[in-house]
Amino acid sequence: MPLNVLHFKHEGRAQWGVARAGRITPIPGDFATTRAFLEANAIETLSALSGATVAEAEVELLSPVTRNQQFLCQGANYRQHMIESGMNPDAKTYNMIFTKAQSCIAPADTDVVRPSRVRFLDYEIELGLVLKRDVTAPVTVTEADLSAFVAGAVIVNDYSARDVQIPQTQFYKGKSFRTFGPVGPYLCLLAPADFARLGDLRLSLTVNGRVRQADSVANLVYGPAETLTELSGVQDLHVGDLLSTGTPAGCALNVPSPARQRIAALLPEAVKWAMFMKIQAGRDAYLRAGDTVESRIATVDGAIDLGVQRNRIVDQKT
Amino acid sequence: MPLNVLHFKHEGRAQWGVARAGRITPIPGDFATTRAFLEANAIETLSALSGATVAEAEVELLSPVTRNQQFLCQGANYRQHMIESGMNPDAKTYNMIFTKAQSCIAPADTDVVRPSRVRFLDYEIELGLVLKRDVTAPVTVTEADLSAFVAGAVIVNDYSARDVQIPQTQFYKGKSFRTFGPVGPYLCLLAPADFARLGDLRLSLTVNGRVRQADSVANLVYGPAETLTELSGVQDLHVGDLLSTGTPAGCALNVPSPARQRIAALLPEAVKWAMFMKIQAGRDAYLRAGDTVESRIATVDGAIDLGVQRNRIVDQKT
Repeated sequence: MPLNVLHFKHEGRAQWGVARAGRITPIPGDFATTRAFLEANAIETLSALSGATVAEAEVELLSPVTRNQQFLCQGANYRQHMIESGMNPDAKTYNMIFTKAQSCIAPADTDVVRPSRVRFLDYEIELGLVLKRDVTAPVTVTEADLSAFVAGAVIVNDYSARDVQIPQTQFYKGKSFRTFGPVGPYLCLLAPADFARLGDLRLSLTVNGRVRQADSVANLVYGPAETLTELSGVQDLHVGDLLSTGTPAGCALNVPSPARQRIAALLPEAVKWAMFMKIQAGRDAYLRAGDTVESRIATVDGAIDLGVQRNRIVDQKT
Repeated sequence: MPLNVLHFKHEGRAQWGVARAGRITPIPGDFATTRAFLEANAIETLSALSGATVAEAEVELLSPVTRNQQFLCQGANYRQHMIESGMNPDAKTYNMIFTKAQSCIAPADTDVVRPSRVRFLDYEIELGLVLKRDVTAPVTVTEADLSAFVAGAVIVNDYSARDVQIPQTQFYKGKSFRTFGPVGPYLCLLAPADFARLGDLRLSLTVNGRVRQADSVANLVYGPAETLTELSGVQDLHVGDLLSTGTPAGCALNVPSPARQRIAALLPEAVKWAMFMKIQAGRDAYLRAGDTVESRIATVDGAIDLGVQRNRIVDQKT
């Protein structure tokens, strides 16, 4: 059975706790990082934890993934999102990997700050996986042994400044502004038997109460096992690191059709990007100060429920 | 006056030392990270360090930037390199930022491993700057106060798997394979007066003794001050983090002319990338097992001299 864990601040102290039905049972000990927490605590022992509780409403949320951990991301990884972008998900040409700066990691209820220089602020709900094991050499991860490599799951919102991200070709800067990576609220620790249900998770994101993104983890193109296998052949991974698995269709970003992209490629760079900006300016789906973004990931039966992430958009103070 | 520091292993223990004329004066204390080293040691006090020495030749090199630190990189940042790639350096359209995985950081004399999946392994000599101060909010860095933000300089080689990097659009994966980021040998600590001479640094890279890259830091397009200013408006930076400032012209990579790029954009993706691979396969400048790559960065008068980085290319054991 899955178990929701919360990282929070209460009575002036950062703590971890088991979250059940709106109340938290604090976990004894101080764990400064997600790595330290996971190395000291296993789902089996935490499931038996009892004792005094505190109401979730009384605590300050902290991100269950701390800022020392790697923040790895996949791009273009849902079938419908790829089709809309003119890609063929069945071709599986490559697994797009990028990173976000660790300093953009924020609590699940953070106010997301739209930087003054950014016009086109977009949302991207994603399933995040938190790693359980150090990997320092190539390894083959299978669906059957995924539970040996993944400790649990979190909601991630990969906020993106499209006017920085797209014309500058590398995603890093446009996706790394401070507050652009809310994580949580819960770190949902998964028992081995729970992994068979990952595909049953539904992602849903609303802006001011209206649904913008809704899809199923079953529509992932590059699954966690093959992604971890490939990453292990490139770089080291550590306990507590975050792999965010990509976002479904429904973002504010308007991706031109492949035919239009080919025509645009014939234009001088400045003209091409002016046209891109003009198209985006015609989209009223981009986020504005005062908007509220809510993200949910859960199975329909609620057996796995990563909670609700709620962000208000604010403008950078100048 | 600049001061060269070495991170090394000797008699089973990781140590730091002041390097002068082939000998090392060990610095008292244990510093597990570049951050810890810089927080505990200043150039002024280290310059006065004396005592028993050990020969550089007797120690095992370690990277002066440890793997906990951020590894930030600039792309397309030398004038001639941009012109060759069909870009206009005077337009200064944007400062391209990406990251390499921290696990690719390696000592200056590392064997660079060409992964089995990689055909087109390329070199990129770069000037790396090691940060001196935490930055957690937007700040304006000027040339005049650069010494408050930068502790010193290192040689970085941004090894790149072109067949992964270019067709997969995000640079991260193709540049993050283990051993793809040798740093050092020296961390050259800079005194405030030394910063005026950064532009006098010459970069030179040879493969098997033949010069492939040779340029001057004066030809950087986005300088350190404006780059740190922009980065501070995006993300946090920490003492000991590494900013690698981009590579000059002369890599093995053949970048098609802008006209050819526009024609290629009209082709189906698979055809376009098959053509790209064919063009690269015709270049004999890509690295092969047994090649030796040497990188040097210094002023002509030797007042600032970051040492010599020497890598042998080996194939991944399968």
